[in-house]
Amino acid sequence: MDYNKESIKLHRKNQGKLEIKGVVKLENKDDLSLAYTPGVGAVCLAIKEDENEYEKLCSSAKTVAVISDGSAVLGLGNIGPKAAMPVMEGKALLFKEFGGINAFPIVLDTQDTEEIIKTVKNIAPSFGGINLEDISAPRCFEIERRLKEELNIPVFHDDQHGTAIVVLAGLINALKITNRNKKAKIVINGAGAAGIAIAKLLHDYGMEEIIVCDSSGVISRHRENLEMSKLELLTYTNPHDVCCGLLDALKGADVFIGVSRANLLLEADIKLMAKDPIIMAMANPNPEIMPDLAKKAGAKIVATGRSDFPNQLNNVLVFPGIFKGAFEIKAKDITTEMKLAAAVALANLVEKPSEDKIIPGPFDKGVAEAISDSIKKKVKK
Amino acid sequence: MDYNKESIKLHRKNQGKLEIKGVVKLENKDDLSLAYTPGVGAVCLAIKEDENEYEKLCSSAKTVAVISDGSAVLGLGNIGPKAAMPVMEGKALLFKEFGGINAFPIVLDTQDTEEIIKTVKNIAPSFGGINLEDISAPRCFEIERRLKEELNIPVFHDDQHGTAIVVLAGLINALKITNRNKKAKIVINGAGAAGIAIAKLLHDYGMEEIIVCDSSGVISRHRENLEMSKLELLTYTNPHDVCCGLLDALKGADVFIGVSRANLLLEADIKLMAKDPIIMAMANPNPEIMPDLAKKAGAKIVATGRSDFPNQLNNVLVFPGIFKGAFEIKAKDITTEMKLAAAVALANLVEKPSEDKIIPGPFDKGVAEAISDSIKKKVKK
Repeated sequence: MDYNKESIKLHRKNQGKLEIKGVVKLENKDDLSLAYTPGVGAVCLAIKEDENEYEKLCSSAKTVAVISDGSAVLGLGNIGPKAAMPVMEGKALLFKEFGGINAFPIVLDTQDTEEIIKTVKNIAPSFGGINLEDISAPRCFEIERRLKEELNIPVFHDDQHGTAIVVLAGLINALKITNRNKKAKIVINGAGAAGIAIAKLLHDYGMEEIIVCDSSGVISRHRENLEMSKLELLTYTNPHDVCCGLLDALKGADVFIGVSRANLLLEADIKLMAKDPIIMAMANPNPEIMPDLAKKAGAKIVATGRSDFPNQLNNVLVFPGIFKGAFEIKAKDITTEMKLAAAVALANLVEKPSEDKIIPGPFDKGVAEAISDSIKKKVKK
Repeated sequence: MDYNKESIKLHRKNQGKLEIKGVVKLENKDDLSLAYTPGVGAVCLAIKEDENEYEKLCSSAKTVAVISDGSAVLGLGNIGPKAAMPVMEGKALLFKEFGGINAFPIVLDTQDTEEIIKTVKNIAPSFGGINLEDISAPRCFEIERRLKEELNIPVFHDDQHGTAIVVLAGLINALKITNRNKKAKIVINGAGAAGIAIAKLLHDYGMEEIIVCDSSGVISRHRENLEMSKLELLTYTNPHDVCCGLLDALKGADVFIGVSRANLLLEADIKLMAKDPIIMAMANPNPEIMPDLAKKAGAKIVATGRSDFPNQLNNVLVFPGIFKGAFEIKAKDITTEMKLAAAVALANLVEKPSEDKIIPGPFDKGVAEAISDSIKKKVKK
């Protein structure tokens, strides 16, 4: 199937992908008097008197805003708000289909950090949670940090944490299959939103040796003029202060995690790694190395972001369940504890992990429920 | 029926009134590849290349934002954003049920004019039209004026123009029944958002003698320190410079239009008016005078905003059709010409106007279509 052509056809036929519908009937004057004036006035006053009533009386309070400024959309880069919308509508669709969560897409006519923060705060009372999407690094770090601090509803930058959770879930099973443990040496290539979040979550999980590379090489104490988000990496990655390039880092490494660009990893590079290495090549749509080449070079387990190969590491496994769980426990924040619980739950969903099945598929049953339940259990403890 | 109690029960049972749903199926990997990655990338690029594709490929481009800062909600006053939400969700529901239009409620955590303008502009690419709602005067005038100037999608403050259109529609039929014409003397009591917009639209329609009163009396050249929105009234109302109070204005008047407060008009006041006067008592939920009292004092025609009396002047007759028409002709603005066409179309929908039927009921068939068609015809001429 020609996905590009068929996708445009599908969007054109339906004029997009979403609709907004009533969940109450509106057939006569009484219906109108209850859903709208005069009855609705009493509902307003109930919320005015007790703000806790908001989430019980308004759909909005359980609706996620999917918000982007269009600055880093898929592999397409800075294409601006309107061109980003099909992705955001898609995301809202996935929230509903996979998690039963109402989500509404908002694209912003600004790429200024402070203005984005202000705008999101100004519309925040209309939502129960904020899913940030496709906002370029390093602005995305500041925007998420500030919104988490200044809002009392869950804020989640999916490109960071959704990716990190699904990678950790896949890694947990891949380590198990290859008889590795938390001492495994991990090389992450790419230090944008996803790369940094993966490093952080793997560290929080307890992985002891993580090395992150960007396009200038290994992020080490030898580097100069590192920006803040990369400087922070030095506090918990690269414990032996490895220098200097990706190939130096790969020597003897157990795991390669690519969130960088197509065809960057060669067969020869994989041969530098430890025996039976784990390769997660997540560049989109074309991975750092194609699975058949990686296997030929000795990789034991290969995962990508694509649906046409085994082991698809796809955020859609994560975000619906995260917000489902957060809403159910009335969480004010998505914590590290919740993210770790989600990753473990996702890994455990695969009954018999194998080389070709380290992670559930998007249409496997019960994924969002398992993540949501894991969050609920974690918080109850 | 106890509307207050039943309305709270209805909202609690459904946790609000809206849901967001997909209009495309999502059952297998191919569906996912078309609605989301990788196929969606081609849709993004099509919009990036030609912005006119946006409205053809995204639901958002035909979605109305129902936006309020919660500063003037129903008769409840400044109750803030979250308490305002049930009204905004209700409005979104009515957009869909009566006009087939997707609408999404946004409440704002600011009541600062400039910040509201900036915020609405920042989220505007996510919508095809902006319906402002329950924003207090005089800020609402500046906010609407600026957004109309600075955005190229339709912006409509319903409390102003929806009310003005439905009042004009009712008035057209009421004048016909009582053998009056554009020379009828009209007194509008209330110079907030609705009162000023009614005066303006009635003037644009050609009514020659309009007098507007606020809580300090007749707005005339004798008044001092009038704010800008009221000063502007002096350029087209009160041609004989009537002074000083509401009762002075009512002497010999043909029409009273109240957008003020309950029980303000007495039987004795109606007796000051011309024979067979027209009374539109729109204060909500309790009108300026109850219909039975008005009739007893000699009123020929009485209209209110309530559903439990004849002649309900309800904005729900207007806004769904206005945006339906605007979307169909790809209007960048809601013009005076469109508003006048809508009012005339609404009046004409009543086949045989009578004292008790000057306006269609909200559940009469074809209301939104008639308004939408009138706009389309107007613009084609």
